[in-house]
Amino acid sequence: MSRREAVRDLVVEYGALIDADRLEDWVELFASDCRYSVISAENLAQDLPQTLMACDSKDMLRDRVTAYREVNEYNFHSDRHVIGGVRFRDESTGGPWRIEANYSLFQTDVEGVTRLFLVGQYDMSVVFEDERPRFADVRVVVDTASIPTLLATPI
Amino acid sequence: MSRREAVRDLVVEYGALIDADRLEDWVELFASDCRYSVISAENLAQDLPQTLMACDSKDMLRDRVTAYREVNEYNFHSDRHVIGGVRFRDESTGGPWRIEANYSLFQTDVEGVTRLFLVGQYDMSVVFEDERPRFADVRVVVDTASIPTLLATPI
Amino acid sequence: MSRREAVRDLVVEYGALIDADRLEDWVELFASDCRYSVISAENLAQDLPQTLMACDSKDMLRDRVTAYREVNEYNFHSDRHVIGGVRFRDESTGGPWRIEANYSLFQTDVEGVTRLFLVGQYDMSVVFEDERPRFADVRVVVDTASIPTLLATPI
Repeated sequence: MSRREAVRDLVVEYGALIDADRLEDWVELFASDCRYSVISAENLAQDLPQTLMACDSKDMLRDRVTAYREVNEYNFHSDRHVIGGVRFRDESTGGPWRIEANYSLFQTDVEGVTRLFLVGQYDMSVVFEDERPRFADVRVVVDTASIPTLLATPI
Repeated sequence: MSRREAVRDLVVEYGALIDADRLEDWVELFASDCRYSVISAENLAQDLPQTLMACDSKDMLRDRVTAYREVNEYNFHSDRHVIGGVRFRDESTGGPWRIEANYSLFQTDVEGVTRLFLVGQYDMSVVFEDERPRFADVRVVVDTASIPTLLATPI
Repeated sequence: MSRREAVRDLVVEYGALIDADRLEDWVELFASDCRYSVISAENLAQDLPQTLMACDSKDMLRDRVTAYREVNEYNFHSDRHVIGGVRFRDESTGGPWRIEANYSLFQTDVEGVTRLFLVGQYDMSVVFEDERPRFADVRVVVDTASIPTLLATPI
């Protein structure tokens, strides 16, 4: 399987594991040395570094999932990611691959009502550890203004 | 062309043929021995086997399309599927390939108003007949609660 | 990289460049001899040739982007394309490749409110110039009725 295929699989897995509420497994898609952040498209456009959320290590990411689990005993909504094609920005060098993908994220509440929750872009950097692709950096750009809740599910 | 490519093509064709109202051709994407079912995400999460709809053979699937044609002389809406990347779950064995894909389904009425109709996940099993991939099993998981209409278009 | 991969990249780039408001670069995805048109699904179904917009040459496409820039000093919304898998309709001949892809287009206003703007299908023809794929023809089929504005962003 080509590296491109492996990277596409990784992006699909990213969305699938969040949607399946398998957040502990989702963390394992990240490299040992990693970063995950969420930034509004507005701040990005204005070159403001302020993020809505940032984890600078895999341990921080794990802690976040643990905290989420402790607070949310029940799921009050379910997520569904529909992610567009992967844009390969830098795959020729020996370093990390830089990729992008647009996403639409829909949420369905306990009544079964689905709404468009967020749209935006993943800006990702992928490294290969033992030939397996892992996220070194995931920056989630969010177009939609939303109240950032510290203990929400990842996007 | 790789088998992965062929399977991706099949999934794209699945949505395209429904959107083009080519339901008779859509049926031909299924294997001679096949199953098509629709289940709510809620029932699936609770391990309830109750489906919203199920066809246990290709003949049943054909009958369903025929019945739909007899009742719906005119189309009162058009469908548009936007399907995310294919998740390859089991492609290494000699048996059926198990794949998944998230979908968003939009409907547009005769006034040209588009709304988000359903989101969910395809859980599919694909076999190769004369080297051509065909659906042995399509289970459509629907997140959105909706009134199941017996003679609606396939999802 | 296979030609299929190159064509997929081109489609992803198409959406990404519009979303990034890089319309001048977007024009360069087209072949020297090209056509871009927008047609409603309703007109298409009734075989009415009337388009919502048509550029019959690359110069017309460039002019359109220039006109857009002159009128819109500020962006009052941002676009986000989520495009489904590419359907390869004709890739075997020496001529142009004919492909299709479903799209959902979301817009976010200055308040950060995102709404579903349009859904539909790209009907594209791709040629290879110096081994690089370029759009010879892009016909955007729009399901959603919308007021066609001459100086809107491309879809």
